[in-house]
Amino acid sequence: MPPLLLRHATVFAGERHWPLLADHMVFADLGRILAVLPEGGAHSLKLPPNALEVDCAGALLTPGLIDCHTHLLFGGARAKEFAMRLAGRPYQEIAAAGGGIASTVRATRAASDEGLLAAAMARLGEMARQGVTTVEVKSGYGLDTEHELRLLRLARELGRRAPQEIVPTFLGAHAVGPEFSGDRAAYLRCVREEMLPAVAREKLATSVDAFCETGAFTAEEVSELFGEARALGLRVRIHAEQFGWHGGAAMAARHGALSADHLEYLKPEEAPLLAASGTVAVLLPGAQLTLALPNPPVAALREAGAAIALATDCNPGTSMTTNLHLMLQLGAALYRLSPEECLAAATANAARALGIRERTGTIAPGQAADLLLWDAATPAEALYRLGAAPVRRVWKGGREITP
Amino acid sequence: MPPLLLRHATVFAGERHWPLLADHMVFADLGRILAVLPEGGAHSLKLPPNALEVDCAGALLTPGLIDCHTHLLFGGARAKEFAMRLAGRPYQEIAAAGGGIASTVRATRAASDEGLLAAAMARLGEMARQGVTTVEVKSGYGLDTEHELRLLRLARELGRRAPQEIVPTFLGAHAVGPEFSGDRAAYLRCVREEMLPAVAREKLATSVDAFCETGAFTAEEVSELFGEARALGLRVRIHAEQFGWHGGAAMAARHGALSADHLEYLKPEEAPLLAASGTVAVLLPGAQLTLALPNPPVAALREAGAAIALATDCNPGTSMTTNLHLMLQLGAALYRLSPEECLAAATANAARALGIRERTGTIAPGQAADLLLWDAATPAEALYRLGAAPVRRVWKGGREITP
Repeated sequence: MPPLLLRHATVFAGERHWPLLADHMVFADLGRILAVLPEGGAHSLKLPPNALEVDCAGALLTPGLIDCHTHLLFGGARAKEFAMRLAGRPYQEIAAAGGGIASTVRATRAASDEGLLAAAMARLGEMARQGVTTVEVKSGYGLDTEHELRLLRLARELGRRAPQEIVPTFLGAHAVGPEFSGDRAAYLRCVREEMLPAVAREKLATSVDAFCETGAFTAEEVSELFGEARALGLRVRIHAEQFGWHGGAAMAARHGALSADHLEYLKPEEAPLLAASGTVAVLLPGAQLTLALPNPPVAALREAGAAIALATDCNPGTSMTTNLHLMLQLGAALYRLSPEECLAAATANAARALGIRERTGTIAPGQAADLLLWDAATPAEALYRLGAAPVRRVWKGGREITP
Repeated sequence: MPPLLLRHATVFAGERHWPLLADHMVFADLGRILAVLPEGGAHSLKLPPNALEVDCAGALLTPGLIDCHTHLLFGGARAKEFAMRLAGRPYQEIAAAGGGIASTVRATRAASDEGLLAAAMARLGEMARQGVTTVEVKSGYGLDTEHELRLLRLARELGRRAPQEIVPTFLGAHAVGPEFSGDRAAYLRCVREEMLPAVAREKLATSVDAFCETGAFTAEEVSELFGEARALGLRVRIHAEQFGWHGGAAMAARHGALSADHLEYLKPEEAPLLAASGTVAVLLPGAQLTLALPNPPVAALREAGAAIALATDCNPGTSMTTNLHLMLQLGAALYRLSPEECLAAATANAARALGIRERTGTIAPGQAADLLLWDAATPAEALYRLGAAPVRRVWKGGREITP
């Protein structure tokens, strides 16, 4: 792979308050960014003769996008539930009728490895066309030891096949496994005593997620799981305050969680807890719209200085989308985030939510050469066209992955 | 052009209450649909030997989509205003600072004919890829006689060049022309006495639209214009109750308007007026999201039996989108319309809003062979993937226009 020199770029480097850098060059080699310089300073950079030079002609260059919350590996589809929900039937009723997570668990368990991988690879292909260079993938549709470990191993296999980096998350505590007939305590014992040690031993995930909600798990139950996860050296994340307030986000902040996700019912006065613990607020407008939920308390999060990320929540039930650009545009439309806040929400802050901010999510020396060249000149232009994804070229670790 | 026979289709024929037709065939010749039959009845259909046969294999077939509200012909871009608005500056303030419609009028007047046509053709190309076979195009960025007529002539030229049918609408009463220094009465005299007779004489538009709003025109002013338009044999439409209530929709209903558009501040008790006059409620979720406006009174419209359409409102200021699929998906997400209501909103009801329901917008004998074959089997599947446009093949007047 030859060294890469991107010239005459307008650089948005990933953090929302960093100034836009006009007419800069970015030099990368061996997969990493080595230098970010104004064009005037070019003479000071000694270039290897084989460097591949790209004239960006003033176009916007940002870090490659990071989708920090997906349930990408699943079998089946749930379009029928989409119509049922529009006819007024609530999530819990659909779930009680054998739909919801349970139906995807059945379809996922029944699917072959290659079937699951092929469907996920198609979704990753759509994401690559959007300039998404890192994708988080959760388990949580296995719900027994065999199938949860299988999904995490398939996520690892996706990482070998896909152009993107895959960051796997263990979400055994997504719902009670069907074999446990609603016995939460017994299922959680299995998660803690069987699944979690195996995940840690095989290094199948870097963090542990849980769904804290009526019908799933209480904050106390999740806290116990998080304690054991941390003792095993794993980071934690949480699905919290989505359909109502259950105290999960504040509890997760006390555990130093990487992120608290959804947050439609977060209390504004809890925002400073997230800011203080460095817990990223991952907002998921696709799920919010699908489920007709209210906006999370964005003003309070912003005022408290909490980091905000945006993600697709790609899943077949409540957010069937691979379109991260649309999520950023909805971040502007629904939450009135500035263009810079939206871009940071899928670069630097999304990297924070995955615990990988020290190696990707910004354009700076030492960071991975994960880069997205836009068909736009400013952050505002990049997000202005609702429903469009103005992507020109994409590099992952310095290698072009533009389809 | 050979006759066209689409076989084994799942037909959603355009009206929201019409049943889905499983395993049907649609036969078209000379641009029109001649027969819609269940596959079992095929033996009764005598086919010409040169018919082009397409096996739909159970996929959903709908009328080609109709985008019934666009400002497609414009110069310039307004991404800066997009960022200003997110920073909290309201529409009227942006307009007062020389932005808004006035800035697009300047850029449009300054652009060459070919420049305007090329930009509009690119947008029509994006729409064609979405299966949009009919596009309404408004004037309204000229605002003097010369430039308003020029835009309508360019719309006619678009109709010659584009794969779609173009339906032009005269929107001289979009804002007060800059030469009139805010003198509404003088400008409206020019619209009524100069522009309108020329539009009617040259048959440059089939209907007359107006913007009834603070900063634009009052219901009384628009009513006078509508009276003259109707006397000239033109139909009328209105932009009404977008930023506040001004009584435009009810007034337009009294004029038998084809449509009343936006309607965020329509009073629920006015919905029966629209239903009674057959005035279509054209909802524009792109503009609503961009401007952070409340939902229109959808429940009241539905209960009253008013026809509901959805459109892009494609314009550079308040709805920079060509993505009609996304608008339908937002119709589901924001307004909780059923998949069938969303599809009808861009087929039969959109055709009503343009006064062309008697010749397109449904799949029935005698209608134009404007057809969209989806990469989906049901209306729910067609709209389930937020931010995707699952289009397989598209025909306009029986001719394939799939890119």
